Amino acid sequence: MTIRETAEFLQSQNDYLILTHRRPDGDTVGSACALCRGLRAVGKRAELYPNREIAPRYMSLAEGLSGSADPTGRTLVSVDIAGASLYPRGGEALADATMLAIDHHGSHTPFAKNTFVDPEAAACGEIILSLLDELGAPLTDAIAGALYAAISTDTGCCRYSNTTGDTHRAAARCLEAGADVIYWNRVLFLEKSFPRLRLEAYLTQNAELYRNGKTALCVLPQRILDEYGVTESDLDDISGFPRDIAGVELGVMLRPDSDGNKISVRTNKPWNACEICALWGGGGHPAAAGAMLPGTPAEARQTILETLKGLGAV
Amino acid sequence: MTIRETAEFLQSQNDYLILTHRRPDGDTVGSACALCRGLRAVGKRAELYPNREIAPRYMSLAEGLSGSADPTGRTLVSVDIAGASLYPRGGEALADATMLAIDHHGSHTPFAKNTFVDPEAAACGEIILSLLDELGAPLTDAIAGALYAAISTDTGCCRYSNTTGDTHRAAARCLEAGADVIYWNRVLFLEKSFPRLRLEAYLTQNAELYRNGKTALCVLPQRILDEYGVTESDLDDISGFPRDIAGVELGVMLRPDSDGNKISVRTNKPWNACEICALWGGGGHPAAAGAMLPGTPAEARQTILETLKGLGAV
Repeated sequence: MTIRETAEFLQSQNDYLILTHRRPDGDTVGSACALCRGLRAVGKRAELYPNREIAPRYMSLAEGLSGSADPTGRTLVSVDIAGASLYPRGGEALADATMLAIDHHGSHTPFAKNTFVDPEAAACGEIILSLLDELGAPLTDAIAGALYAAISTDTGCCRYSNTTGDTHRAAARCLEAGADVIYWNRVLFLEKSFPRLRLEAYLTQNAELYRNGKTALCVLPQRILDEYGVTESDLDDISGFPRDIAGVELGVMLRPDSDGNKISVRTNKPWNACEICALWGGGGHPAAAGAMLPGTPAEARQTILETLKGLGAV
Repeated sequence: MTIRETAEFLQSQNDYLILTHRRPDGDTVGSACALCRGLRAVGKRAELYPNREIAPRYMSLAEGLSGSADPTGRTLVSVDIAGASLYPRGGEALADATMLAIDHHGSHTPFAKNTFVDPEAAACGEIILSLLDELGAPLTDAIAGALYAAISTDTGCCRYSNTTGDTHRAAARCLEAGADVIYWNRVLFLEKSFPRLRLEAYLTQNAELYRNGKTALCVLPQRILDEYGVTESDLDDISGFPRDIAGVELGVMLRPDSDGNKISVRTNKPWNACEICALWGGGGHPAAAGAMLPGTPAEARQTILETLKGLGAV
């Protein structure tokens, strides 16, 4: 579907139930809340499908929007859900009944009757803003706040490489329409939890630096995660920690767990993370790749160091 | 002067020497480089006054732009210099001879023959972009890169509270004109030096948390700064560290040095940093304020805790 056809579809129905993805982030929640409020503003009934995994920081966006889980007689719309396996817990069966999927993942696996995917959009929130414009919905401060949360989540507040001119222009409109950008910038990208800070302290004090600080290796032991009470959300982007030490070109994180030794490689030029991980049977992108290594954590560390030595990286 | 008059002034002369401020940051360097390249693009002679304090990360912006320090027969223009006392080392005497000062500091103390100050601009780079538009200079990739560095330095990559819709729109134009935003976002806001990381580890492990983590107090001893080799540039924004622990409403940093005990208070609602610091004879803004306390560091810490206890904050 084109964006125009997607808007026409949304005009054609009257009672919407909007779904967010499993382990919801700011983009899916913000997009859903903005779409829900926008549909209401143009005279539709619209509610959010209850997703119990939504973090407290996003609750304010959804105030007054929660609905029942019953899909009977309603038009199901998914936002930022890249495939049926990512439907929220309890709502797995609803993928087949979904009438419209709105998404920005290039890897989107179609499951809905109608699909609008724009992989050029850095965040699903950018698409929702365009759709609301097509629908003639006003950009209220509540909608702008939801869209700003969506856009800044997926672009690291306009810092990640997916950020485009359109991202900045969408953020400008949200800011000027009254989004509480100070709040979102703080909770999304300024604050760190105390367990996360303790973990970073551990990683700093145990970092192995080679080649005068151009290569860094960090090990993330499970016992430290347990001892500090580190949750999955505290681990956001932790794989980038070794590479983000100033001067490092090649950063490696080794995270042993019950499945084996998870290796994450992050690089700046001239190194290619994907080529390095391919040597261990893994893969990914030039700047970010991963692999699994067998054996004990000590054996995995030795394998990593031997490989890097062969490449002249340690 | 208006922006139009400022552009007309720049049209009226032919040989420019552009000055950056002492302890130069990305905004002054980026603004100067962009202005210099823009003036050359419209047929003027233009060079940068040599400022030996410019950090290596900014050197690429200034490639081919450095000039001699001799002002004879040239039109001096300052960018982002808020007062004569901020002239670069060796160039102190040039403030009186400056024909045009371009700045965005509300606190600008006039020193030049002509002054254009726009305190609404989050970065001086935003003003330079408008000026180049007025001059009809092209937004080349080199100019866009310099302006992006300028704008993102002063706005924390569009995250600080001074960011406006215009900031985002300027960033969008720079990005689309070919600025290497990935590089700047990394060196300006993703990377941390190893001494900085060690310092943050120390602060985390020695943080005092009160009221179930709503108040945080950190002490920054000089001996730690010396031991870790922490430089002034490593200390950027360090005063915000206690407040930026998730859940903290009131963060206090105590930094004893040879002049006494420097206190920095950073707050989220409902606390007012300025009112708290006023109790110690200091001042500032509602969210960020400071004061000096006499006595030993231990005595200063005691004073802080007693004051905060009186306020119900510990």
